[in-house]
Amino acid sequence: MSLDAGQPHSDPADHGGGLDAARRRFGGARADWIDLSTGINPLPFPLPDLPAGCWTALPDQGAYDDLLAAARQVWRVPDAAAIVAAPGTSALIAQLPGTVPAGRVRIPGPTYNEHARAFAAHGWTQTADAAEALVLVNPNNPDGRVWTSAEADAGFVVIDESFADVAPEVSLIGLASRPGTVVLKGVGKFWGLAGLRLGFALGDPVLIRRLSVLLGPWAVSGPALAVGAAALRDHAWAAQARVRLSRDAARLDALLTAAGAEVVGGTDLFRLVRLSNAPLWHTALARRHIWTRLFPYSAHWLRVGLPGSEAQWTRLAKALRDVS
Amino acid sequence: MSLDAGQPHSDPADHGGGLDAARRRFGGARADWIDLSTGINPLPFPLPDLPAGCWTALPDQGAYDDLLAAARQVWRVPDAAAIVAAPGTSALIAQLPGTVPAGRVRIPGPTYNEHARAFAAHGWTQTADAAEALVLVNPNNPDGRVWTSAEADAGFVVIDESFADVAPEVSLIGLASRPGTVVLKGVGKFWGLAGLRLGFALGDPVLIRRLSVLLGPWAVSGPALAVGAAALRDHAWAAQARVRLSRDAARLDALLTAAGAEVVGGTDLFRLVRLSNAPLWHTALARRHIWTRLFPYSAHWLRVGLPGSEAQWTRLAKALRDVS
Repeated sequence: MSLDAGQPHSDPADHGGGLDAARRRFGGARADWIDLSTGINPLPFPLPDLPAGCWTALPDQGAYDDLLAAARQVWRVPDAAAIVAAPGTSALIAQLPGTVPAGRVRIPGPTYNEHARAFAAHGWTQTADAAEALVLVNPNNPDGRVWTSAEADAGFVVIDESFADVAPEVSLIGLASRPGTVVLKGVGKFWGLAGLRLGFALGDPVLIRRLSVLLGPWAVSGPALAVGAAALRDHAWAAQARVRLSRDAARLDALLTAAGAEVVGGTDLFRLVRLSNAPLWHTALARRHIWTRLFPYSAHWLRVGLPGSEAQWTRLAKALRDVS
Repeated sequence: MSLDAGQPHSDPADHGGGLDAARRRFGGARADWIDLSTGINPLPFPLPDLPAGCWTALPDQGAYDDLLAAARQVWRVPDAAAIVAAPGTSALIAQLPGTVPAGRVRIPGPTYNEHARAFAAHGWTQTADAAEALVLVNPNNPDGRVWTSAEADAGFVVIDESFADVAPEVSLIGLASRPGTVVLKGVGKFWGLAGLRLGFALGDPVLIRRLSVLLGPWAVSGPALAVGAAALRDHAWAAQARVRLSRDAARLDALLTAAGAEVVGGTDLFRLVRLSNAPLWHTALARRHIWTRLFPYSAHWLRVGLPGSEAQWTRLAKALRDVS
């Protein structure tokens, strides 16, 4: 099987997830583990009833149009911006660098590593200086940094707002009407529907059209069209989820701080702490079957997602007392 | 909404499906219509129970590996061929021409139109002569032509076997171990799971690796990993489906022939008939809310899929008597 391409880059050392690898190293059944290695909402949008035929018929144009209308409304997409839906924001990240001729790209980091990989795969050179292309992850993963419109300054700008839905006021969606700009959104993190694979690119109609051709027809599954539209339309659920996530993020900060960690950033979907020895904490928590996110480039940073139940909160609190 | 990219190329005049457009023109509720415009098995593989978390967690590497193992087994993929799963064969068709430098491509036709569109989008020139690249749809859509190994002769060969699972003996999967060759498979047609979005590329490890990078990580949804693996592993279901489809294709031929149409090709998932005036039949059937497939390049060809119930067979038989 060594020839198989696998899920590209799904390297547990470089991404959240990877609980299978954690289990191989630290034991335990899957159900024993608390996965805090991602920034996925642990209390996801509840699945609606699925329409008959969504698994079997080719995804319907009407359902696709409904989904785009829901997306335009929830994200207040400018009328001048075009929109395309894709099987996950990752698919769009992989394709975007191929929509314009390769040159130099600035990707202020550390940040989500797939952007650099995708630009490199399309022949771009990464630079720390001003360049033809710019990628801003807003808010940034893992430190939560928020960018301003003034900072989104390049001919080709990708603004990845995968984590912006906890705080819509930080969104730079207004820039989606600007030539050369594309904003990415998804339902994986805030709506907790990462398995569904549903992301959106919003922006320059020329670039969106190119993305659309590269994705091919019927890019989004029938179930994703139905579940995604229901999730994006339920604004009451979103408002309640924001309140809960904000409260839970504060609760997590209190636990981490009490354990001696310094909270240095994050969003309401994950917290970033600074430690004298992050790998030591990571391993100590993993021995207690709590999986957190370590970064290959830092010995001091640890990212911690939100527990999803009181039982998980209790186990995390106890583990942090043991570790500290 | 005119800026929206829509589902690219989902033009009802150029593809199967498009029942919404048919309804706008000929009226009727969706449930009133019999959609015979696709080659999708009308009695699909039954959905298994889905694992907890498949909608919410990032698609799991273990589940992905299970799916590839099932694919290798059912399609007898040579060990030397690599494999990658994608959200539909269409996604692979859209990406494949970008995996090698653009040149000239021969696409014997008429055939499925997305191949020509994708090669053109990546800067290739289509030619009727021998060329660097060759696309064979095996069996061909819509005429059912089957290709031989000797005909798969070019440096870069794409063999689209979307319809091969009704007759596995026609498969050219043995060529997947050859440098420069990629074979495409999917669960949309024979397994009747077109809404799921699940396709596979099998072949040259270098090309498969490039495809994999272009698709990005977690390309296949959690539900598709689970349903796809169950479908590909159920060899008994496949054997029974083949018997039924073969019987139903013969039954459809008898109806069409009795109505005065000449059956000139197809597969056990659809039949191609030659008529003096195909648009006339298409419209007459549409007035009776039966949707068939007309081709923009032919006034004589009509493609007809299989009815899925006795009620549908009865309605089709009556409509054909009225039309003929």
